Amino acid sequence: MSGKVVVNRCMSLDGFIAGPGHSMDWGNGRALADFVAPDDVAQVAAATGAVLVGRRTWEVGARMKAEEPDSGDYPFSGPVFLLTRRPLVPPDPNVTILAGDIGEAVATALDAAGGKNLEVLGADVAGQCVQRGLVDEILVYVLPVLLGDGVRFSAPGLARTDLEPISSTRSGDSTILRFRVREQSRRPG
Amino acid sequence: MSGKVVVNRCMSLDGFIAGPGHSMDWGNGRALADFVAPDDVAQVAAATGAVLVGRRTWEVGARMKAEEPDSGDYPFSGPVFLLTRRPLVPPDPNVTILAGDIGEAVATALDAAGGKNLEVLGADVAGQCVQRGLVDEILVYVLPVLLGDGVRFSAPGLARTDLEPISSTRSGDSTILRFRVREQSRRPG
Repeated sequence: MSGKVVVNRCMSLDGFIAGPGHSMDWGNGRALADFVAPDDVAQVAAATGAVLVGRRTWEVGARMKAEEPDSGDYPFSGPVFLLTRRPLVPPDPNVTILAGDIGEAVATALDAAGGKNLEVLGADVAGQCVQRGLVDEILVYVLPVLLGDGVRFSAPGLARTDLEPISSTRSGDSTILRFRVREQSRRPG
Repeated sequence: MSGKVVVNRCMSLDGFIAGPGHSMDWGNGRALADFVAPDDVAQVAAATGAVLVGRRTWEVGARMKAEEPDSGDYPFSGPVFLLTRRPLVPPDPNVTILAGDIGEAVATALDAAGGKNLEVLGADVAGQCVQRGLVDEILVYVLPVLLGDGVRFSAPGLARTDLEPISSTRSGDSTILRFRVREQSRRPG
């Protein structure tokens, strides 16, 4: 039995998934973990069997960890796949590099999730996955801030995509919105 | 007793308050009323004592009404103020034109609301009001669609604004999010 492919992202109320310069500071130094109830993050992590992440999101995460080693870790310890054409220097033994077609990458990572969900992180990768009909659900943490500018939720050129709301839950100071992607037509890798 | 100044807008999940060309077609010809439960719209309208609207939003509304006269009217019949420097041709007897400073416009319209809320419609006007510290609450109807492109929720140059979540409610296929604007400092008109 296969898990779902879930695009997972946080967003300001005005539709930015990061600030200018890909900053993940959501106001006064607060990170996502400062807005969301820990139990909800743990629940999402528990349903996740593997993570597929884009290069820029990976680097933002690595930078945050370097700057603030004590910031709340995402409570997930399964396989992580990084979609990139450039090798990691130095290599990270906990990460599998995938460089090929995104459909193949999703198929590989979903297989590794062992029946749990595959979580897709990163604006570019997520946008490509939505466009290719590879995504089952979108989970958005709406944060209580207007950023005014930054990295848009939708990469330029994303075609209109109809969604179906699944749920809306307040979690700490954020709101977790879940949607099913309509007319899902997952293509084989 | 004064009502609240409420910015009221609908938005795609990816942060657009209208499609390209200010289209208010949210997919397959559906308008806002096709997504939101009528009772919820009626409840918002009942709490509203006056409306302040920007010129472009006014024209989009007029165009929609001309194209689809039977489309669901907003169940509100109180005073409407249009912020514009160009006269309406022909004039509309149901609308008061305001051309001065936005702080004065909000004060005038709020006064006319007679203790109920003033609803602010239109990206430019709403952005200016937020920036000037004139807004008490933001009410967003999140629609279940990714548009990919269009008119952004935030006008370029909007400074970061911290919000405080009030509520999150599923309404039909949309989700109604309410926020309080933090550190509210309404200036006298």
